[in-house]
Amino acid sequence: MALIVQKYGGSSVANAERVMRVAERIVETYNKGNQVVVVLSAQGDTTDELIDKAKEINSNPSKREMDMLLSTGEQISISLMAMAIAKLGCKCISLLGQQVGILTDSFHTHARIERIDGERMREELNQGKIVIVAGFQGVNEKGDITTLGRGGSDTTAVALAAVLNADLCEIYTDVDGIFTADPRIVPGARKLKDISYDEMLELASLGARVLHNRSVELAKNYNVNMVVRSSLNNGNGTLVKEVAEVEKMLIKGVTYDKDIARVSVMAVRDIPGVAFKIFKLLADADINVDIIVQSIGRGDTKDISFTIDRDQLTETVDLINKNLDYIGASGVNFTHDVAKVSIVGAGMANHPGVAADMFGALADADINIHMISTSDIKISCLVRWDEAEKAVQAIHERFGLGSPVQEI
Amino acid sequence: MALIVQKYGGSSVANAERVMRVAERIVETYNKGNQVVVVLSAQGDTTDELIDKAKEINSNPSKREMDMLLSTGEQISISLMAMAIAKLGCKCISLLGQQVGILTDSFHTHARIERIDGERMREELNQGKIVIVAGFQGVNEKGDITTLGRGGSDTTAVALAAVLNADLCEIYTDVDGIFTADPRIVPGARKLKDISYDEMLELASLGARVLHNRSVELAKNYNVNMVVRSSLNNGNGTLVKEVAEVEKMLIKGVTYDKDIARVSVMAVRDIPGVAFKIFKLLADADINVDIIVQSIGRGDTKDISFTIDRDQLTETVDLINKNLDYIGASGVNFTHDVAKVSIVGAGMANHPGVAADMFGALADADINIHMISTSDIKISCLVRWDEAEKAVQAIHERFGLGSPVQEI
Repeated sequence: MALIVQKYGGSSVANAERVMRVAERIVETYNKGNQVVVVLSAQGDTTDELIDKAKEINSNPSKREMDMLLSTGEQISISLMAMAIAKLGCKCISLLGQQVGILTDSFHTHARIERIDGERMREELNQGKIVIVAGFQGVNEKGDITTLGRGGSDTTAVALAAVLNADLCEIYTDVDGIFTADPRIVPGARKLKDISYDEMLELASLGARVLHNRSVELAKNYNVNMVVRSSLNNGNGTLVKEVAEVEKMLIKGVTYDKDIARVSVMAVRDIPGVAFKIFKLLADADINVDIIVQSIGRGDTKDISFTIDRDQLTETVDLINKNLDYIGASGVNFTHDVAKVSIVGAGMANHPGVAADMFGALADADINIHMISTSDIKISCLVRWDEAEKAVQAIHERFGLGSPVQEI
Repeated sequence: MALIVQKYGGSSVANAERVMRVAERIVETYNKGNQVVVVLSAQGDTTDELIDKAKEINSNPSKREMDMLLSTGEQISISLMAMAIAKLGCKCISLLGQQVGILTDSFHTHARIERIDGERMREELNQGKIVIVAGFQGVNEKGDITTLGRGGSDTTAVALAAVLNADLCEIYTDVDGIFTADPRIVPGARKLKDISYDEMLELASLGARVLHNRSVELAKNYNVNMVVRSSLNNGNGTLVKEVAEVEKMLIKGVTYDKDIARVSVMAVRDIPGVAFKIFKLLADADINVDIIVQSIGRGDTKDISFTIDRDQLTETVDLINKNLDYIGASGVNFTHDVAKVSIVGAGMANHPGVAADMFGALADADINIHMISTSDIKISCLVRWDEAEKAVQAIHERFGLGSPVQEI
């Protein structure tokens, strides 16, 4: 008997028919003799509809109240799923984040899990029930509902798998697994059989949108075996685990993120402590910074540029503007006419030719590079927003990622 | 400084515009120097839509899961209201039943409040916040969400007023107050300035639909001053309190309830203990019985008839059928082609002519009476379903309830 955590996204439970179909898959897993914990997202566009409802009333609603509002989406999903599973004759129970004991910090709308008290879950599992948990949500010390941010249901699933010592965490989605590139952009993209946590982490944080990056971090830290597979067929999906089986391919994939913005703090003094001031300010305001590039000083000043989530742009620019004197900068400059295109693959650092190939592919496609950032297992380039897809195609082609085995 | 509890129904918060309008009224009360606790129902048809969603998946869903589902409606209302009030510049916080500490029993879908721990509420009020509470919901000992049944938000409001020792509990609705009859049926119906708890209790349980009867019971037990008024204007509404001011009118109103059904247990033996068996069965199944009529025995058998809520009919008939041998009955007979028409007024018992007048009014209108039940302050008649409105009109007319002062 294995203990399996299954997570289904919003499109998999968008209407009554899909809920029933997912219920059948869950019961099938249960009937094979497994204990099953199910984590669900809100149905279809529910979350967006709730956001619209809020914006109609207040364009800048309190984050605590947004969490109170948005968490209803998952609550609806789990109760409906419990009804569907009961109809199929299985014992089951729906549980909210709070009931599962998911304790988070108090950063509303993007809280982090601090602790999970799995007792109620274990109790219900031991009674032979399928346990259906609301993803995306937790509760802080005061008993107020928090949410984990977009894609937080993946995080919930992996966290529950970790705390329950589950044998497998299955992330069901509407695609067949992790691909070398988005198949909608690159028709020749190939599905990966497996991928390491680190590679997946880069792909996730780079906008592959298949898995929430925090869920992969968590899986890595607690050594949770994850598989990403389709809820529409019985394909094997892509296994995410400690060390991927050796496929002779360095570059795992190429991906892009269009939901970013670039901010530059202009003409700061070229002395120690300036970057600290800027990024401490941002950290205190809970703004996630991704790529950071600092220009080489001209005279005694330099520019510091960074990328952030697009929806934090206004907040970030306001914050910098308010603190221009404190930072000692002349002004702030920003754009959201940017996208980040990245390649990911372990061992890249030892193959200097990879970066050159990537830049060459972009040059040949007449795409200008605005910022570059590299790490052991990825290279990212900032390009113009409307050139992102073309960039992905050019890079995928250059590295021949569509062929099953590839060595550089 | 007074402490005021305000309850707004679903139609008062049905859309963004109405939410803003209600928010303005709340802030107005607050700005007069009052502490304000607001209790809200689900927006407009939300509850019905959620029920439809459930029925699409499972025609007989678990009650626990229904509570999990339906409680989201109020959660959405309170978060939106908090956003609206914040927009008007007031400090406020939304709280769920659980957060307010509303502990109930475990009768899902119609739980009863056992205890309220008002600490969090007091804390927030003392910080100068308007507290916005989800009506209709509580939590049982296990931490599972329960709901109080339709109209339960009234009960929440009165219970909070009781535990907080509030100066006033205002029930906002889409009518101007309590009328001598439903103005949609009887155009000449008159608004009452005040009414006693007992009279209101009869009117509420008889289907006046303006107030949930449990809320009135609770108000009576804890001596909570309630006022029923319109959220659409600034009328005074109707005050519900210990002893109504003496208006020289005995009959307070005439009302009807079409959501009932009549069940008859046929040919039970005319010996002691039979009625006990039947109503113990029903009580154990948590089925509320209203009017009970026992026929005079014919030979050694008699029939026992009673009315129940229409939506418990199937359950009731099944239960009786399963227990025919135990009860010792020949069969069960039922109909929902019935409605209950009632007049309410204190001191009725001392005016035998009142019953005769009521029956006379029905006879003149050619309406047959199927069952009769009387108490100190009400007389109810069962009539045919489609004759309910006509019956109300005839009785209202006969007693001259439309004139401001009336004595019998």
